[in-house]
Amino acid sequence: MNKSRLEAFSDGVFAIAITLLVLNIRIPDVPYSQLPQALFHALPSISTYVMSFVVIGIYWISHHQSSQYLEKTNRVLLWLNLFLLMLVSFMPFPTSLLGRYPFKEIPVMIYGINLIAANLTGFIILLYVYYHKDLASPKFTKEALKKQLPVYISVNAIYFIAILLSFFAPLISYLIYAGVLVILIFFLSLTRN
Amino acid sequence: MNKSRLEAFSDGVFAIAITLLVLNIRIPDVPYSQLPQALFHALPSISTYVMSFVVIGIYWISHHQSSQYLEKTNRVLLWLNLFLLMLVSFMPFPTSLLGRYPFKEIPVMIYGINLIAANLTGFIILLYVYYHKDLASPKFTKEALKKQLPVYISVNAIYFIAILLSFFAPLISYLIYAGVLVILIFFLSLTRN
Amino acid sequence: MNKSRLEAFSDGVFAIAITLLVLNIRIPDVPYSQLPQALFHALPSISTYVMSFVVIGIYWISHHQSSQYLEKTNRVLLWLNLFLLMLVSFMPFPTSLLGRYPFKEIPVMIYGINLIAANLTGFIILLYVYYHKDLASPKFTKEALKKQLPVYISVNAIYFIAILLSFFAPLISYLIYAGVLVILIFFLSLTRN
Amino acid sequence: MNKSRLEAFSDGVFAIAITLLVLNIRIPDVPYSQLPQALFHALPSISTYVMSFVVIGIYWISHHQSSQYLEKTNRVLLWLNLFLLMLVSFMPFPTSLLGRYPFKEIPVMIYGINLIAANLTGFIILLYVYYHKDLASPKFTKEALKKQLPVYISVNAIYFIAILLSFFAPLISYLIYAGVLVILIFFLSLTRN
Repeated sequence: MNKSRLEAFSDGVFAIAITLLVLNIRIPDVPYSQLPQALFHALPSISTYVMSFVVIGIYWISHHQSSQYLEKTNRVLLWLNLFLLMLVSFMPFPTSLLGRYPFKEIPVMIYGINLIAANLTGFIILLYVYYHKDLASPKFTKEALKKQLPVYISVNAIYFIAILLSFFAPLISYLIYAGVLVILIFFLSLTRN
Repeated sequence: MNKSRLEAFSDGVFAIAITLLVLNIRIPDVPYSQLPQALFHALPSISTYVMSFVVIGIYWISHHQSSQYLEKTNRVLLWLNLFLLMLVSFMPFPTSLLGRYPFKEIPVMIYGINLIAANLTGFIILLYVYYHKDLASPKFTKEALKKQLPVYISVNAIYFIAILLSFFAPLISYLIYAGVLVILIFFLSLTRN
Repeated sequence: MNKSRLEAFSDGVFAIAITLLVLNIRIPDVPYSQLPQALFHALPSISTYVMSFVVIGIYWISHHQSSQYLEKTNRVLLWLNLFLLMLVSFMPFPTSLLGRYPFKEIPVMIYGINLIAANLTGFIILLYVYYHKDLASPKFTKEALKKQLPVYISVNAIYFIAILLSFFAPLISYLIYAGVLVILIFFLSLTRN
Repeated sequence: MNKSRLEAFSDGVFAIAITLLVLNIRIPDVPYSQLPQALFHALPSISTYVMSFVVIGIYWISHHQSSQYLEKTNRVLLWLNLFLLMLVSFMPFPTSLLGRYPFKEIPVMIYGINLIAANLTGFIILLYVYYHKDLASPKFTKEALKKQLPVYISVNAIYFIAILLSFFAPLISYLIYAGVLVILIFFLSLTRN
């Protein structure tokens, strides 16, 4: 398996998962007079749609960033990548839960677990490539890894706190997820290419 | 992120969103004897399917046109593009609303807002590229921009009027959306390449 | 718009439409004891799934065949191609109808109309390219066109008869659709590359 | 049809089928107090999601492995490949059945039949390429084929036994499917590239 076909397949899965998210915004079969109310109740679905779109977008961007550190692939990396894609493809499920039971403990918790699981897998992939010099590109220096560490660690630490918080204050956790994304967008926009 | 992967990802999202539209045409579970009636009631769904297919088709074509003015990308452009893709991926939702509550005020209005939001984002991307000479291709002259301006401005002005009209005469607004598309198809067929 | 991006986008739509077909095979929420019966009633859905999969597969193959006669594209061709893709993307709808009302007049008729509409559009694209020598590849000789004509004409004539027949004997029409596909598979397997 | 476009189309279908699987995980419309129970009942859906994701992942990887033995394609190969893609695209249906009637005889049996059918088709494709030296790459030696034989034969023999077992002990069959996947992942990770 060469790198470019792995990337193309991954890009395909990212593109499909991100586009399927919209199917989770559903309006019950109500008469037109009740549509405003039904739309009002769909607002959490829509805000969660936006959130998950940004999440998968960020995963896609960091997938690219990581893949530029990669010279070639092996089977273990293939499976790690497939596992990451599984966690990304899974996103529509917690997204749909969160839209249907907005700001409730369990959906907020499941959503956060999915986020952390995908982040951790991405991080393991990064480490795996770093410690297999035959796979890594020469560009993947210790400095390059060190620059990424604080982002991965702090984001996941915050997500972990948000998950713990979800038992008591799920709305706060939800806002934390959203806040982290805003910071990540800002942060990722500052770094070059 | 190089330009070609951005294009490939965007093309994927356009292709998926355009193909998912058909899932919004639904026939209730009626006995066969009532199928003609059920199909008759599905006609607005079908006409809205055609309309949204053309809309996403036009977005895809102008995305290509814009991307030929692009030499390389940066992070801000990546996010702007992702935001555009989000608005395009969102289209199946207002399309489904419009099919279920045909020619009604709220769905017609939401549909129009989605159209304007996507148009504006596309226009902002164009301006962003134009004012960042390091990203723009030399082909992207002032003349090239000026040629696009009247189309963007007039289309959005008409959409804006259609949205305002939707409170009083949603059917007229719907016909305006469709009419603009016919003109755009005609106009875009005249331009070269 | 260059030819290769048009092909990539079209391939994407073909791949998505062909894969979405499976969503039309649905089993009602019955207790397990009634599952055999429910599966038995899903058999027409499954056979129609196979049929539509082959149909879209054939469209995809002839799309490729046609595109090798193409040197470059223009806007009119772009729209004709988009119209073809719309008819292909639409296939899941008559497929779902045919699965739910198996061998009934109206779904059989709608299915056939969709087939003819897509065939005709494909044929118009072929003629359009043939008569625009600036778009056509030198490979696209009069002989190449003449070799295709009888297939297009006979297939559509048979479909047309099947549609007329659908008022009286929809099952026969259904079998005609299937039979034509078997012949086409056989025929297309004989021709080189 | 050249090889690279066949691969791209196949990759597209694999990517879409693998990403659509998540739509089969559904939670009934219950009040929030009953969500934990509903999620508990969705666990078989989720485990089957993981299983089918791995299955399609393995098909995708072996598709790549096989395609490196291929120099060019012909029409028969095109149809064999389309038939394989049909069986892969079909996977969401038995996956959904298995999630709804977990560990029940019929769904377990249908799932196994789908697996064997896809494996056999993959194997027939391999043999077809091997015996058509004009299509095969020089890399496709007798040794290369012989190395694959035991895997194909043993996997399908085990699946066949699991299908027979499904009449008496469907849960055992389900675990056999899962166990074979774990072994295959392990086995495929050992082989180079």
